[in-house]
Amino acid sequence: MDTAGIDFWFDFASTYSYPAAMRIGALARDAGVKVRFRPFLLGPIFKAQGLTTSPFNLYPAKGRHMWRDLERLCADLRLPFRRPDPFPQNSLLAARVALAGLDHDWGEDFCHAVFRAQFCEGCRIDDAGTMSEILAGLEIDPRPLLAAAQSDAIKARLRAQTEEAQQRGIFGAPNFITADGELFWGNDRLEAALRWANSL
Amino acid sequence: MDTAGIDFWFDFASTYSYPAAMRIGALARDAGVKVRFRPFLLGPIFKAQGLTTSPFNLYPAKGRHMWRDLERLCADLRLPFRRPDPFPQNSLLAARVALAGLDHDWGEDFCHAVFRAQFCEGCRIDDAGTMSEILAGLEIDPRPLLAAAQSDAIKARLRAQTEEAQQRGIFGAPNFITADGELFWGNDRLEAALRWANSL
Repeated sequence: MDTAGIDFWFDFASTYSYPAAMRIGALARDAGVKVRFRPFLLGPIFKAQGLTTSPFNLYPAKGRHMWRDLERLCADLRLPFRRPDPFPQNSLLAARVALAGLDHDWGEDFCHAVFRAQFCEGCRIDDAGTMSEILAGLEIDPRPLLAAAQSDAIKARLRAQTEEAQQRGIFGAPNFITADGELFWGNDRLEAALRWANSL
Repeated sequence: MDTAGIDFWFDFASTYSYPAAMRIGALARDAGVKVRFRPFLLGPIFKAQGLTTSPFNLYPAKGRHMWRDLERLCADLRLPFRRPDPFPQNSLLAARVALAGLDHDWGEDFCHAVFRAQFCEGCRIDDAGTMSEILAGLEIDPRPLLAAAQSDAIKARLRAQTEEAQQRGIFGAPNFITADGELFWGNDRLEAALRWANSL
């Protein structure tokens, strides 16, 4: 029998992608579900919906609730939390490095470290220095990775990944998509998505 | 010791208010938390945020996910589900009757019946005939209730209730607010809100 699988679609700047990224590994392992990390960019997807920035900035009451809710959620999960400034951060560079990194076995560790840098340590993820430090922390030589991240091949792959996200019905982040194309949006839907993956 | 309490803020036209209304009674009873039903109108609150209708209509991809998600959620909860047409329905009349009804011990039963009429039976809740049938089903004479619902006193109470919702930071529905003013938005947050209420 094939192992059940799930695609984890996230944007590094997305607030609820942080707890989802930190939770998915252990939960999927327990459920016997294989996870594929798929970073994409929310910016073009928001823009296509007529949104000029994050809905959490466009609708201040919604934003106030989100920050408080995320703080409560992280406390329950015993995840450190610090509000990124500015918000949202530009996640283009991190997404490109992640795409290059996910060809290697340390790719998911890199993704976790980017979320930690942004949501625990107050780092800016649009800064090549932050990327270099994270890579060095994983004992990866940053120079070839940062060069690969700026290659035409990786740029095109990130564009294609973002277009695929849109075609799959994605309008926010994080998302979990099962092998039959079922879309589950939101950190809250991780458990339901894993059950669905196992029911196929 | 005082019983822990929670205010349940909902709009009859709000899709996720349906499972929340059907779940809250048993969960709150088990948690030993007293619930107060507080119907309000999302329309003025959306309007104040510059939204001309439900975000699920304004953002079609978000709307498509919501309908599918609600269908999955209701299946998991073994709640019947039928998509209301039109959506959103005008919930003004139902909210006014509910406010008058919540002064009586059958008020919550009336609220459940309005959600069932809309989300299971395909009824229009802006129709006085639907309201009369629901009231008659609860063995309440509809005429004095419908008259009370159209009184200046109830109209003013619904306006005040909606203004209070906005002042408390409400931007959508459903919501749960604990005695210390903590706002939990969304059917998904019901369990967390009950835990919070019990921790005070």
